[in-house]
Amino acid sequence: MQSYQSMTKEELIKEREEVQAQYKKYQKSELNLNMARGKPSLEQLDLSMGLMDVLGSRADLTCDDGTDCRNYGVLDGIQEAKVLLGDMIECHPDNIIIFGNSSLTIMYDTLSRSMTHGVMGNTPWCKLDKVKFLCPVPGYDRHFTMTEHFGIEMINVPILSTGPDMDIVEELVSSDEAIKGIWCVPKYSNPTGITYSDETVRRFARLKPAAKDFRIYWDNAYGVHHLYDLDQDNLVEILAECKRVGNPDMVYKFCSTSKISFPGSGVAAIAASPNNLVDIKEQLKNQTIGFDKVNQLRHVRFFEDIYGVTEHMKKHAEILRPKFEWILDRFDEEFGGREIGKWIRPKGGYFICFEAMEGCAKAIVSKAKKAGVVLTPAGAPFPYGKDPKDSVIRIAPTYPTLEDLKIATEVFITCVKLASLDKLIEHAELCEVF
Amino acid sequence: MQSYQSMTKEELIKEREEVQAQYKKYQKSELNLNMARGKPSLEQLDLSMGLMDVLGSRADLTCDDGTDCRNYGVLDGIQEAKVLLGDMIECHPDNIIIFGNSSLTIMYDTLSRSMTHGVMGNTPWCKLDKVKFLCPVPGYDRHFTMTEHFGIEMINVPILSTGPDMDIVEELVSSDEAIKGIWCVPKYSNPTGITYSDETVRRFARLKPAAKDFRIYWDNAYGVHHLYDLDQDNLVEILAECKRVGNPDMVYKFCSTSKISFPGSGVAAIAASPNNLVDIKEQLKNQTIGFDKVNQLRHVRFFEDIYGVTEHMKKHAEILRPKFEWILDRFDEEFGGREIGKWIRPKGGYFICFEAMEGCAKAIVSKAKKAGVVLTPAGAPFPYGKDPKDSVIRIAPTYPTLEDLKIATEVFITCVKLASLDKLIEHAELCEVF
Repeated sequence: MQSYQSMTKEELIKEREEVQAQYKKYQKSELNLNMARGKPSLEQLDLSMGLMDVLGSRADLTCDDGTDCRNYGVLDGIQEAKVLLGDMIECHPDNIIIFGNSSLTIMYDTLSRSMTHGVMGNTPWCKLDKVKFLCPVPGYDRHFTMTEHFGIEMINVPILSTGPDMDIVEELVSSDEAIKGIWCVPKYSNPTGITYSDETVRRFARLKPAAKDFRIYWDNAYGVHHLYDLDQDNLVEILAECKRVGNPDMVYKFCSTSKISFPGSGVAAIAASPNNLVDIKEQLKNQTIGFDKVNQLRHVRFFEDIYGVTEHMKKHAEILRPKFEWILDRFDEEFGGREIGKWIRPKGGYFICFEAMEGCAKAIVSKAKKAGVVLTPAGAPFPYGKDPKDSVIRIAPTYPTLEDLKIATEVFITCVKLASLDKLIEHAELCEVF
Repeated sequence: MQSYQSMTKEELIKEREEVQAQYKKYQKSELNLNMARGKPSLEQLDLSMGLMDVLGSRADLTCDDGTDCRNYGVLDGIQEAKVLLGDMIECHPDNIIIFGNSSLTIMYDTLSRSMTHGVMGNTPWCKLDKVKFLCPVPGYDRHFTMTEHFGIEMINVPILSTGPDMDIVEELVSSDEAIKGIWCVPKYSNPTGITYSDETVRRFARLKPAAKDFRIYWDNAYGVHHLYDLDQDNLVEILAECKRVGNPDMVYKFCSTSKISFPGSGVAAIAASPNNLVDIKEQLKNQTIGFDKVNQLRHVRFFEDIYGVTEHMKKHAEILRPKFEWILDRFDEEFGGREIGKWIRPKGGYFICFEAMEGCAKAIVSKAKKAGVVLTPAGAPFPYGKDPKDSVIRIAPTYPTLEDLKIATEVFITCVKLASLDKLIEHAELCEVF
């Protein structure tokens, strides 16, 4: 396929006329499609309806240690839920606290606790002049908005194919005491889809932070969300690695069943070192008597064990794989050799990240919207919503049906071509002037 | 019955010998009973087992507006849950946000948000030198421990039979800008069992706080927890009253279904003015995508409407009434005329509050423990765990079976007599010396 970059101005204009005609067709068909958020589809939600039956009115709602899950108590979660989620994230159940339905809330509460009470005896952040976080970009928009909400300064760090640029991370973390954390989605990363390499994780574990209360916020949101049974990415387990190299307290690991069972009604957890868990529980006991134990038990009874989760995730993969592959194959067919964008073929997770030509992301998202396809706003995967190159677009293929997704993909491809052609023609015209 | 206060030293010693003999019998019987926490009994929990059936795998989990409760979204709760809880606390559904399973967490998060972000644009409390709360005493221990956790200074205000002493409340609130809140359990109060009088609520609504960000923390935990169908306490609805007198933003009202359905798995809510709700949601959208909507729907399908709640609460009352009445009748029989303690006959709620002779509460709780009956620690209903008169004991009659409760009551009565006799004899001996 001919690269747009190598076309003459006349060729570009001709091409644009064709693409423009196609775009107008889409506009006329009054589409209403959405690839904006990482939401499971209805078909996926139906996989977990068995959850609704495992605890009928005749069920015994006591857990293994004799606790009646209906009543008050058990601050850190029932043991069998710790085992299940522990197996899911490769951590010992003793290193886990089970919370409510949202890992985002755990992350928020972790920031909030650090602001008001500090981390393991260190100065509360609200008493410091400046607190900074490193933000590998592109990343998860909700991490960034909550960090901004607390007035924490965010510093961009580029994500490479191996994870965050560790030369930069090491340099900053070891030299600036105001840097208190870094946001990581280490597996099937949101939105790039990459998994941190072994070396990256090992370098993370060996960081020598200037701040004693520096923590890695390890959002393991897609730990078991593989698209393929054999061809899976592997992620070095960071808690164990940190412990092994003498940095046991440096990481908070977050996970949830939101994209395993129901996003509206799952269970979430944090895993951390014993010292961190003591610190967290000291605060948590003031915040609650205990989270929803019945729902914890419901999840345990439904999945039974980690094998149950593995088999369940295969069913999700069967629904998601065709969607991912369709988009990626069409990108290969339409963009291969065109030199107007880059993307990675993720082996799991919830997103495809398209890196358009510089200065084109906003235009693409805007054109798609006008043709009835809603995408995540350009800029969203960056702190303060500012993509310095205006090039990154996060595509969420999960929610639409495959049929709708196919149409949305064609619209997206057309919009990318159109915005790229606009840019190249504009550039060609500028060159003529000078 | 002869008053202990009027007995001679010799009479007291003789009485003590008899009571002591009875106490030793209890000690030998190796009891293991608990009246420490306001937990529903197993029999009460069984009333709500129907909750487990209303959303089977064939149920439609979409709510009235078409939202699929299984998926992400709906920050402030599903409409039908707002209607149900709104009817429960006499508030318009538009004034409500539904949260997770714990109103305690909402209260904690409200304090936490005020610390980090301030209240409706006012200075965040963490930036102030001093923040104070008024604490009507005796009150709910978990209110006080969370307030202490945030380093907020607590000021005791006596509770009268009409509610907090409003002369003191008005004086302090209008003169000290550092006073940012007051804790209230206005109906069937924890632990006194009283309900705030109409005048008290009207005076609350008419407060003229020195601090713009002063808020009444109105923990309506026992709003529908009547022991009698007709002989109910009535509480003036504070949000409406505040609005009526031009103070619409001065109150946060909290409630939950913890002691209606399951404490481990209920739904909780806050009600407040539109201005406050905007302020809360501005923060909340950073903390979660939404709380457990499936459980909200489950509660709506189970109770159907407020009439369903009323009928359900009658079943709770049938279980609780004999327990409360047994203890109160035995108190009448054993303490009437003795002048060694005071108590109120509550018409609802979860507690009986016994006010022993000064300096006797710790001794009573300790003696009961040694005879196998665990009570709430003396001092717990006071800030910093310090009961200035060492006289208040909170009794929680709900959890034990009626049979166990009868034994525990006899032990308690014996311990009260014993500690009182010890005190009176000690006093008589001191008088002899001087």
